[in-house]
Amino acid sequence: MKLNVCYTPALLPLYDIKESIVVVIDIFRATSSMTYGIENGAEAIIPVASPEECRSYEGKGCLLAAERDGMVVNGFDFGNSPFSYTREKVAGKSIVLTTTNGTYAIRQSSEAAEVIAGSFLNLSALCTRLLREKRDILLLCAGWKNKFNLEDTLFAGAVVNRLRSSVTGLDDAGLAAETIYNTAAGDLRKFLKQSSHTIRLQKLGIEEDIRFCLQTDICTALPVLKDGKLVRLEAL
Amino acid sequence: MKLNVCYTPALLPLYDIKESIVVVIDIFRATSSMTYGIENGAEAIIPVASPEECRSYEGKGCLLAAERDGMVVNGFDFGNSPFSYTREKVAGKSIVLTTTNGTYAIRQSSEAAEVIAGSFLNLSALCTRLLREKRDILLLCAGWKNKFNLEDTLFAGAVVNRLRSSVTGLDDAGLAAETIYNTAAGDLRKFLKQSSHTIRLQKLGIEEDIRFCLQTDICTALPVLKDGKLVRLEAL
Repeated sequence: MKLNVCYTPALLPLYDIKESIVVVIDIFRATSSMTYGIENGAEAIIPVASPEECRSYEGKGCLLAAERDGMVVNGFDFGNSPFSYTREKVAGKSIVLTTTNGTYAIRQSSEAAEVIAGSFLNLSALCTRLLREKRDILLLCAGWKNKFNLEDTLFAGAVVNRLRSSVTGLDDAGLAAETIYNTAAGDLRKFLKQSSHTIRLQKLGIEEDIRFCLQTDICTALPVLKDGKLVRLEAL
Repeated sequence: MKLNVCYTPALLPLYDIKESIVVVIDIFRATSSMTYGIENGAEAIIPVASPEECRSYEGKGCLLAAERDGMVVNGFDFGNSPFSYTREKVAGKSIVLTTTNGTYAIRQSSEAAEVIAGSFLNLSALCTRLLREKRDILLLCAGWKNKFNLEDTLFAGAVVNRLRSSVTGLDDAGLAAETIYNTAAGDLRKFLKQSSHTIRLQKLGIEEDIRFCLQTDICTALPVLKDGKLVRLEAL
C-alpha cells in the first residue's frame, strides 16, 4: 500500500493509476461542494469539461453548474460554492458541473481503479475507506490551472498524516505535503491567508466559502466515480 | 520583481520565462557539481541531452561526463559526483555533461533572459546576484524524472527565505518551499534522510556526496548559460 501525492493534473501521466485509488482534491471549492452535495442527497454529480458540454444537458431535468476563474458562468443555475449544494437545493437531483480545476482532474483520473472526491468535510470517512481498501493511493491535487496550490497540498498532507503509519511507501511530494500540514494544522485559515487562491477568493467576496470548506468531518459521504458520474459510495 | 517556484521541468511550459532569470536547481548532484567545477576553474560545462550526444564530443579535448540513475554511464570519464570536479581535474578544461535531470532542466530553460545553476554551495552569491538584477525570478527544480523532489525544493525554500522581503509577489509553490525549508533548516541532512533520492544515493554508497552538496557557501562562482555553455559569471 503505497501513498503518493501528485501536485497537479499536468503531472498525472507520470503515474500508473490503473490499480490505484485516486483521491481528487480541489478544496476551494469543487470537491468540497461535491462532498456536501452528495451528503445532502444529490443523486449524482456529472463532471463535464466545458460550459458548452454542461449546457448540452439542458432540458434533461438536471441542475446545471459552471464555474470559471472563481465565478458562476453567465446563464447557469450556480457554480461551485458549497452554499449552492444544500439539501433543499440538490436532494434527489442530478447536477452537471464544470469547474476550472476540479472536474478536469476527475476526468483525467477516470482510468483509476477508483476515483473519490476528497475534502476536509469528509476527511475521516475518506481515510477509513482508504485504510480498508489497502490499495495503492494517489492523492491528486487539482491545483490552479495545472500549477501547484497550497490548500490542496494542505489537505493531501492531512491525509498523509493520518495514513503514514499504515503505508509501505511515501513519496517526496507526500513528505513535503505532510510537513506543510504539520506547520499549518493549528490554524489552517491563517496559514492559507498568504495563498494565491485565498487572495483570489477574498477579492470575489466569498470568504464564507473558505471558512466552510475548511471544516473537518461535517460529512460522511464519499463521492465516487461510477460510469462518469459521482455518486454516494454506499458501504464503507 | 516576482519570485515563483516550478517544481519540475514538466511544468515549465506554464511559465513565461523570456524576461526572467531562471535558477536551475539539481542539488543531488548536477548543479552542485557544476558550481564546484566552475569554481575550480573549469572553462565551460556543456549540458547535453544524451550520452550519445556527449560521446560526439570525443576527440575535441573535452572531458566527457555522463550520469544516469545516479551512476556513471559505462565508458565515460566521470558522472556528476562533485569529487570529480576538483581543481586538479577540471581547471582550464571544458566538460560535456549529461545527467538524468539537471542538464535536461537547463536545456529546457534556454529561452530565459538568464539561466544560472544554483546550489547550497553558492547560495549567497546567487542571492546577491538575484537581488541586484531586480528581474522576475523562476526557481526551477530539476526534480526526479519530472517528479517533485525534496532536496531541490528545500534549496528553493532557502532562496525564498533570503529574498522574500525584497519581492513583490511569491507564488504558492514558493510559500510551500519556504515552509519546508524553515522546518528543515536546523538539520538538512536529517530532514532529507526520509527522501527518495537520499535513499537512492545511500544505496549507491555515495553519502559523502550528499554531505558535500549540503555545504553552504563554499563557492562564489555562478555558472551562467552563454551560447549553450555554462561559464563563470565574471562580475556580480
